[in-house]
Amino acid sequence: MSHSEFSLIEQCFVSKAMATQTSTVVTNGDDASVHNLAENEQLVVSTDTAVQGVHWPDDFPLDQAADRAVCAALSDLAAMGANACWAWVSVVAKGRDALAVIGQGVTNALNRYDVELAGGDTVHASLNSLNITVAGIVEKNTAMQRNKAQVTDNIWILGHSGLASLGLEQWFQGDKDGGFVENFAHVEPKLKQGYLLRKLGVRCCIDVSDGVLQDAGHISKASNIGMQLDVEKFPDWQLLCGKLGDEKAMQLMLSGGEDYALLFTAPVNMKGLDELATCIGECVENLGVQVHYQGEEMKFKQSGYDHFG
Amino acid sequence: MSHSEFSLIEQCFVSKAMATQTSTVVTNGDDASVHNLAENEQLVVSTDTAVQGVHWPDDFPLDQAADRAVCAALSDLAAMGANACWAWVSVVAKGRDALAVIGQGVTNALNRYDVELAGGDTVHASLNSLNITVAGIVEKNTAMQRNKAQVTDNIWILGHSGLASLGLEQWFQGDKDGGFVENFAHVEPKLKQGYLLRKLGVRCCIDVSDGVLQDAGHISKASNIGMQLDVEKFPDWQLLCGKLGDEKAMQLMLSGGEDYALLFTAPVNMKGLDELATCIGECVENLGVQVHYQGEEMKFKQSGYDHFG
Repeated sequence: MSHSEFSLIEQCFVSKAMATQTSTVVTNGDDASVHNLAENEQLVVSTDTAVQGVHWPDDFPLDQAADRAVCAALSDLAAMGANACWAWVSVVAKGRDALAVIGQGVTNALNRYDVELAGGDTVHASLNSLNITVAGIVEKNTAMQRNKAQVTDNIWILGHSGLASLGLEQWFQGDKDGGFVENFAHVEPKLKQGYLLRKLGVRCCIDVSDGVLQDAGHISKASNIGMQLDVEKFPDWQLLCGKLGDEKAMQLMLSGGEDYALLFTAPVNMKGLDELATCIGECVENLGVQVHYQGEEMKFKQSGYDHFG
Repeated sequence: MSHSEFSLIEQCFVSKAMATQTSTVVTNGDDASVHNLAENEQLVVSTDTAVQGVHWPDDFPLDQAADRAVCAALSDLAAMGANACWAWVSVVAKGRDALAVIGQGVTNALNRYDVELAGGDTVHASLNSLNITVAGIVEKNTAMQRNKAQVTDNIWILGHSGLASLGLEQWFQGDKDGGFVENFAHVEPKLKQGYLLRKLGVRCCIDVSDGVLQDAGHISKASNIGMQLDVEKFPDWQLLCGKLGDEKAMQLMLSGGEDYALLFTAPVNMKGLDELATCIGECVENLGVQVHYQGEEMKFKQSGYDHFG
């Protein structure tokens, strides 16, 4: 890269990133970064791309969009119960100003969660987007996975479901100070909570990025079990139902993504979960995800966002 | 993701990716992938984004563009001397057809170098681009770095310099079967060679992605030494000079990127390098990069591509 470009990266990203990891041997500024892992640790890696106009509205503040993209990526580490350590961030920006604002959002999020910026890339192109690869560590063979649910496990949710979608609807309707816009604007990756769940012995978890129905479906399929959910037990059921009626409330809670709650299963006798999360159902033998409302099974069509639909 | 989208990823990427690593515990299809490292190993990570119309011409075949983007990312691991293990690939595509073709190019490259597709993401948007994060391993504290050059080290180049730029020029001039187009179209990451250099004891290396002058400048700055290059010693000097004259030959060799040669330094008494690479100069005390031609020092302006210039 040229000197001016190097300075730009330095100015927009590196100089603002505060977190450092003692296990990092070579960081930002070489061809690659180099890291140590302890003998009893495993590496956990996830990658996500967020594009303006797809993952956030065109008129949404770029720094908040970048911040939430980083947090959404970190949420995948939370779902594994990993200790988040490093991020490699590539930014495609329409110009220097956009790059600077995106850089601010990226570093705000990384600094808030004490994650090191270990490398990255910048490109000038016709849209704004960013790719975030994040990595963390877990003690060997303790990572929470989608395929570890057991029949008779309870199903729990940690965090909200449907509020971010409602906030996004408000934004699109021009109500940019709407009461739920903040739920879309600020993603909280449940890193501490995921870590705690893993330490408590939880082995099956997913983060809800595409709606509870769809993400529960991933657990069901991977674990080869069925899942019965009771909408009236969801943490925001009363709020959403009272405000919007039961049909709309159900649609938001079950199909609205973007809240980045943790959906997990745990043996019925596991202690300590009540203070962290809400039990919303149980795992059963029949495959698939069933939803109950007022004692009856509800039918739902295809849910979630299909990028190439 | 929806079922149809999941099938698309499965169809375009996962089903075509062949390499697997025994050290991978959880792969593609969970929130994150999980990997083991041995006690004497360090993790090496790099990320790169390539965008249509920026990193390859709009009318260039998408599968070749994706293939070379993956290889360019792997080249960073080669420059560290790492054993390439995993890739996480996020694709932004204009549609299903583009996604399928990009997927083919990505998997072609990964399979050729036995690198595992450990995760990824797909997005539908208004341009074609891909982000590739690659990771590999090195024995502890042996990674080749930019800051390890020593005064009196010889400077070596492994691979071509200038040929890919010439090929790209031919493409843009409409000579799409031009003799050097292949040099642009097919990137060879020097993974085996980088590994071998590290094993031979080389400690300072960079891959030439932005032109020899600029990348030598990175070594010079990071190592706090000067570098003297002799253009007449470059491997393709005779070829390019005979074909294009000395001025154009020099410009291509010194400022043309995209060949992904390895530029490294080594103590003068190091054995085994002659069969792998070409000695093109030496490290000196004065800072900066000097270029000699016919015994005289040449002057060059700022070189390399500035994305936000």
